[in-house]
Amino acid sequence: MESQLIARLRERIPPHPLVRLGPGDDAAVLRLAGIDQCVMTVDLLTDRVDFELERVDPRRVGRKALAVNLSDLAAMAARPLAGVVALALPRVGGLDLALELYEGLLPLAERFSLAIAGGDTNSWDGPLVLSVTLIGEVTPRGPLPRGGARPGDQVVVTGSFGGSILGHHLDFEPRVNEALLLAERYELHAGIDVSDGLSIDLGHLIEESRCGAVLDLDAVPIAPDARRLAHELDNGTTPLDHALGDGEDFELILAVPPDDAARMLAEQPLCVPLTVIGRFVAEPGLWQTDRRHGRSKLVPRGWEHRFD
Amino acid sequence: MESQLIARLRERIPPHPLVRLGPGDDAAVLRLAGIDQCVMTVDLLTDRVDFELERVDPRRVGRKALAVNLSDLAAMAARPLAGVVALALPRVGGLDLALELYEGLLPLAERFSLAIAGGDTNSWDGPLVLSVTLIGEVTPRGPLPRGGARPGDQVVVTGSFGGSILGHHLDFEPRVNEALLLAERYELHAGIDVSDGLSIDLGHLIEESRCGAVLDLDAVPIAPDARRLAHELDNGTTPLDHALGDGEDFELILAVPPDDAARMLAEQPLCVPLTVIGRFVAEPGLWQTDRRHGRSKLVPRGWEHRFD
Repeated sequence: MESQLIARLRERIPPHPLVRLGPGDDAAVLRLAGIDQCVMTVDLLTDRVDFELERVDPRRVGRKALAVNLSDLAAMAARPLAGVVALALPRVGGLDLALELYEGLLPLAERFSLAIAGGDTNSWDGPLVLSVTLIGEVTPRGPLPRGGARPGDQVVVTGSFGGSILGHHLDFEPRVNEALLLAERYELHAGIDVSDGLSIDLGHLIEESRCGAVLDLDAVPIAPDARRLAHELDNGTTPLDHALGDGEDFELILAVPPDDAARMLAEQPLCVPLTVIGRFVAEPGLWQTDRRHGRSKLVPRGWEHRFD
Repeated sequence: MESQLIARLRERIPPHPLVRLGPGDDAAVLRLAGIDQCVMTVDLLTDRVDFELERVDPRRVGRKALAVNLSDLAAMAARPLAGVVALALPRVGGLDLALELYEGLLPLAERFSLAIAGGDTNSWDGPLVLSVTLIGEVTPRGPLPRGGARPGDQVVVTGSFGGSILGHHLDFEPRVNEALLLAERYELHAGIDVSDGLSIDLGHLIEESRCGAVLDLDAVPIAPDARRLAHELDNGTTPLDHALGDGEDFELILAVPPDDAARMLAEQPLCVPLTVIGRFVAEPGLWQTDRRHGRSKLVPRGWEHRFD
C-alpha cells in the first residue's frame, strides 16, 4: 500500500539540504535559488482507474490530470508557476488523443497563469497514462503542511462531499484561489485536499500532526450527488457514507485556530461554503460524534492504491 | 509523431513570462524566484518499450528512469537539484517492485546530490510505468539549448555510439559532470543528448539551430557493442549503421567554435573521449562525407515514438 511504501522511503531517503518537506505531504517544499518558496508535486493518472477513456471526452481527462495537481498545490497554499506533462499514448489515434487532452488541460492552465513548460510524449501498446508535474511558490505565509494541526483547532472544510463518481471528479474546481485567499486572511495550521476520501484524508492529516480529531457527523456537508448516488445504488449506503468515503471531492480540509475559524465562518469569504465539521484533539485517533449516538471510533474509509 | 505534436503545441501554447525556453528542447528553462536559472524536464518510461521487466533487474529499470532525465539536464548543461517520481505499478508484487526500482534509482540520485522530493504511487492492471521529473539549475554560463549552433562550429561528441540495446541503455553514465565541466572551460553554442539516435538527434539540433551539418562518417566513434550487435545480427547492417541510428547512447552532441573544439580535443579533459565528427554549415540539411564516396545526403535514422 502507498502509505507503507512512503514509510519505507522516508527511512531510506537521506535528508537533503534543498528539501524542506519531503515525501508524504501533498507536495514537496524545496529551497531553490536560496529562497524557501518552491513547491513540487506530481500525479499520474491511468485509464480505467482515474477515468474511463471509452466513456468520457478526452478533454475532461486532460483537464482532470492538471486539476488534481493544482489541488495538491492548493493543499499547500501555493501559487501555481509551471508544469510539464508526460503521456503514454495508444499507437492508433494517439496524436488526435494528445491534442484533445491538451485542449482540456490548457484552458485550465491559462486560467491559473500556469506555464506548461514542456513534456514527454510516448506511444505504446498499453492504455492511456498521463503524468503531470507542477511547481509552485508559497506565499509569504509559508507552505501549509499536513503536519501542523494542534489540539483545539477547528476542522474546517470547503464545499460538500460524496458522489463525485457521477462526474464531479472530472469537472471539480481546484481550490487554488480559495486556499491563497484563506492563507492570506486567516491563520491556518494545516491543510490537505480530499482525494482519497474525507475520513481517510482527515486521518492522513492527524497522523502527520500527531493528534486526533472528532468529526461531527451532523455537520458534514453532503453533496447533492452523494444523495443521488445513494438513491441510485439503493444498497444500504447512506449519503453520509458517500460523503465520508467516496473521495475525489478535491475540497480542502483545514486546521484553523478557533478565533480564526469563527471569523472565517462569519465572513464566508469564498464562492463556496466554509463549514466547521469537528475539532482536533490531543488524543490520537479519529472519532465521530452525532446527536443520537455520542462519541465513537470512526474507521476511515476511502480509496487507497492497493499493491502487495 | 512526437515532432508533429510538439509543433502543434508550440502554436497552441501562448508565451508565458516564466518560460524562457518551452517545449521542444531537452528541458524547459524557467525564470523562478526572479532568476533565469531553473530547468525542468520529464521522461516517462514504459514496460516493453524502454525496458523488458521480465528480463531485467528492476533496479536497472529504476536507475534508467532517473538516468535518462539526468541526461536531459546534462544536455542543457544544468546541475541537478530535485526530482519527483510517479509510478503505475502492477497490483501483485507492486510494493516489492517499487522498493527495487528505488534501490536502483536512489544511489544514482545520491551520486549527483539530487533530492528525491516526493512522488505519486499508483496501482493498476497495466504494465509498469515510471515518470520522473527533475529540476536543475544552469551555471552562470546559462543553459545550453539545441538552437545555438552556428555555421563553422565543430560537431563534437562524447564517447562512442551504437549497440546500446545489448545493455548500455540501462547502465549508461549520464554526462552531467562532463557537460558542466565543458560548459565551464569552453565556449559551447548548442547541445543535445543522443536518446533517439546520433543522426536523428543531430537532425533535431540543426533544425532548432536553422543550419545544416556535415558528418564525417570515418570519424564517428563506434562502440564495441555496435560491432558485436552487427556481428550477432548478421543482417547486412554495419557497425556504422548501428552507431548512426541505434539511439539510447546518451552521449552528448555539442556545437563548439573551432578554436575551443581544437583546445578541447588537445586537452581531452574528460574520462571519456571527445571526438570531432563533423561541422555545422549554413545550408540546411544533414550531409555525410567519407573518404570513398565524398559528400551526399544523410537520411537521419533512429527511434521516434510513432502514433497517428
